[in-house]
Amino acid sequence: MTTFPDVPAFTGFNTPSRVEANVHDLDVRGTIPPEMDGCFYRVQPEHQFPPLLGNDIAFNGDGMISMFRFKDGRVDFTQRWAKTDKWKLENEAGRALFGAYRNPLTDDESVKGKIRGTANTNAYIHGGRLYALKEDSPALVMDPVSLETQGYTDFDGRMKGETFTAHPKTDPATGNMCGFGYASKGLLTRDMTYYEISPEGELLYDVWFEVPYYCMMHDFAITPDYALFSVMPMTSSWERLKAGKPHFGFDTAQPTYLAVMPRRAGTTAQDIRWFKGGNCFTAHVMNAHQDGTKLHLDLPVAANNMMPFFPDINDAPFDPAAGATYLTRWSVDLAQNEEEYRSQRLSGMIGEFPRIDDRFTGQKNRYGWMVVIDPAQPVEAKGGSAGGWVMNTLGFVDLESGTEQKWWCGPVSSIQEPCFVPRPGSEREGDGWIVMVCNRLESHSSDLLIFEATNIAAGPVATIAIPVRLRFGLHGNWAEANAVKALEEA
Amino acid sequence: MTTFPDVPAFTGFNTPSRVEANVHDLDVRGTIPPEMDGCFYRVQPEHQFPPLLGNDIAFNGDGMISMFRFKDGRVDFTQRWAKTDKWKLENEAGRALFGAYRNPLTDDESVKGKIRGTANTNAYIHGGRLYALKEDSPALVMDPVSLETQGYTDFDGRMKGETFTAHPKTDPATGNMCGFGYASKGLLTRDMTYYEISPEGELLYDVWFEVPYYCMMHDFAITPDYALFSVMPMTSSWERLKAGKPHFGFDTAQPTYLAVMPRRAGTTAQDIRWFKGGNCFTAHVMNAHQDGTKLHLDLPVAANNMMPFFPDINDAPFDPAAGATYLTRWSVDLAQNEEEYRSQRLSGMIGEFPRIDDRFTGQKNRYGWMVVIDPAQPVEAKGGSAGGWVMNTLGFVDLESGTEQKWWCGPVSSIQEPCFVPRPGSEREGDGWIVMVCNRLESHSSDLLIFEATNIAAGPVATIAIPVRLRFGLHGNWAEANAVKALEEA
Repeated sequence: MTTFPDVPAFTGFNTPSRVEANVHDLDVRGTIPPEMDGCFYRVQPEHQFPPLLGNDIAFNGDGMISMFRFKDGRVDFTQRWAKTDKWKLENEAGRALFGAYRNPLTDDESVKGKIRGTANTNAYIHGGRLYALKEDSPALVMDPVSLETQGYTDFDGRMKGETFTAHPKTDPATGNMCGFGYASKGLLTRDMTYYEISPEGELLYDVWFEVPYYCMMHDFAITPDYALFSVMPMTSSWERLKAGKPHFGFDTAQPTYLAVMPRRAGTTAQDIRWFKGGNCFTAHVMNAHQDGTKLHLDLPVAANNMMPFFPDINDAPFDPAAGATYLTRWSVDLAQNEEEYRSQRLSGMIGEFPRIDDRFTGQKNRYGWMVVIDPAQPVEAKGGSAGGWVMNTLGFVDLESGTEQKWWCGPVSSIQEPCFVPRPGSEREGDGWIVMVCNRLESHSSDLLIFEATNIAAGPVATIAIPVRLRFGLHGNWAEANAVKALEEA
Repeated sequence: MTTFPDVPAFTGFNTPSRVEANVHDLDVRGTIPPEMDGCFYRVQPEHQFPPLLGNDIAFNGDGMISMFRFKDGRVDFTQRWAKTDKWKLENEAGRALFGAYRNPLTDDESVKGKIRGTANTNAYIHGGRLYALKEDSPALVMDPVSLETQGYTDFDGRMKGETFTAHPKTDPATGNMCGFGYASKGLLTRDMTYYEISPEGELLYDVWFEVPYYCMMHDFAITPDYALFSVMPMTSSWERLKAGKPHFGFDTAQPTYLAVMPRRAGTTAQDIRWFKGGNCFTAHVMNAHQDGTKLHLDLPVAANNMMPFFPDINDAPFDPAAGATYLTRWSVDLAQNEEEYRSQRLSGMIGEFPRIDDRFTGQKNRYGWMVVIDPAQPVEAKGGSAGGWVMNTLGFVDLESGTEQKWWCGPVSSIQEPCFVPRPGSEREGDGWIVMVCNRLESHSSDLLIFEATNIAAGPVATIAIPVRLRFGLHGNWAEANAVKALEEA
């Protein structure tokens, strides 16, 4: 029998939902821009079964993919499991077989050596294919219309590493999907691989290299000529895993690095430059751009660890203030013989989940959107939160004018990552909308909100009631209908 | 764009859900009896689209069928629309086309003459087929495993009437499904038809007759030799429909009748006996049985109208106390030259939605279960209710010993119709369980509860969290896995 534990990770807003659903023509307050024609895909971690070890972190849940199909001012909702190898094995067994987050030592004997991926981090469209992504495993391919799982891909045998990032980037000039894997030669290895995949799905080339120390390499950035990686000391070791500690622990003794890799076939590890920086925490990347010989990487940076569930390796208590992330620019000049990157804070807002108008990936973007923690707003702690963060505000930055906007979601709500939707026919940066799930924590319900992208302070232009109980989600992306052949035909 | 009106019928617990869902292995507290092997089907009215006329009653919603598949102590959940002709026409149009409850004068011109049925009242298994039923239209056939709709049936052309009851009965001796239609020759006609259908789906015979006045003929009873009908003055007329009044209105000036019809091919209207009674309200039937020449019909009876949304035809204010229903026995002796039925109250509980161990249909049953309104319990009015009733208690009657049991669901919950599940291998009446949906009104969530059938006072032995937002439901039924060939094979 299936009984989830009575713990915060599985009660309140975290109550198991596990619903594969189809809902036609969702109830809307306000007006959905009728020219929106495409899909917003997002993913939430959900445990298919009660955790093997009695409790678990959200990051170890199985991927559940939601699709919001917009057309003619209406929106349909579809939700399906990302049926990973893990999901199928556990489904067959009728119980959890895999143990702790990235700790195969805790797994049931029957699944030793199986791919542990959960596909729970991002839902990404490229070349008309839907990828459900988790950085510890290969990319899972799903049908972008039916959301049926097709299975893991190694890109016709050309991907030799074991993992593929949850945060690929699509180069707007070439249409290539740029991605990477870390722990490419196996769990905890320092091996990394950069991949570039054509719109036709062909893996064009790879670059193998090693990072200075094994770390959570969660995101990265591209420019037309370079790939940029932030190495920060969320680390692990076999000792941690054997001791049953959380996979990751934050090491305040380690420096950070900004790695700059030329984006071209034939690049070798020797071509990569490593710029050192002080100890700090980074996770997601907003964007990067080139300015002559200079490179700029914009990303939220915290003075110390942001993730309480991956504690300090020396058991220092978690410090929320030091874990506050601020949008920051790391800069280097390749023409200079620099050994360190320079760092400059770009915003006073505590923000993460940074997003841009993705058509400006790798170019200098003017606008950015983030999930902001606004500590000045009142909070009614009801229904729980994701990771303990009070993600109560949508933030908008105009890096050209230096102005900012905020939209507060209220005392008993929280928000998920925003996603930019371009206005059809317009190429102007930021001309379009933001779609974003808003968690109604007390009622355990969710709305999908739509904002005019550069006027978020005005509040949503449409509030779409999602009749299925969602959970805290991670990342999502918009796909124009014409970017998915099967969508246009459906 | 689709925006439901901000009225009680579509807010709180009545918020549109409209979710077609699959959920595997629901979360359970307590223990599901592992020997339960079958399906609990139930239906709730749900509007596919905002009502054409701005507001509506729940009874006019489209049928949404839920299936709980029990096996090996686990339960899976599936939910699908009953895709009636109305549903398909409206789905195609992207909006409501049919107007008020049983008033075709309010429909869009484009659907004049189409079948208006919503299939929203009962989900009934017979002969391995699933029927979604609404008394104003033919029976809708659905696949009992996939819940895909197959369409309306006229039983190979042999059903000549326009309607089929939502409350058929299966004769445990013959296996025949006994049903009827009213308004058989068209809306508001006094024509009724009795049908008997073999387990193979063959319509064996019909009997045509007229009722003294057009009325809501919602339920009936069978015994081995007779069909029993309660004629009560929830009436209508073209004048009401033209005036835009609710279809039904209660007429306190009319008598009631108990009709007794011999169950055999060749029966004519002349064979039916009509026993008169005073004005009162009835809706559902618990059971009937023969005792020599005597016939007993057990059903909840109220002194006056129970349904505030179908008001008094002379606009008398609704009287909740007079609308309270009490389980009552109507008796006649066919050997006597009686003109009236006798009436005897069997329970002091205010109860409706009466159910029995269906294996005792038409025989003298000892046990009965009902939804009870217990006015002695506190109520916190949150999230709304169905029809204004505070259905807060599961009631159990032992008609042999005269004892009763009650189980109160708490101040912010309400319950839906109970359904008896026989214990496999046992033929003893009442040996089994009750399954019942419990509405958590404030959180707009639902649990499926399981009780030991003759010990409901002990409370549920299992509480199954339903992760999909249900709405107030109407009727449901249990099907053993071996009663549905496709289920056994699935």
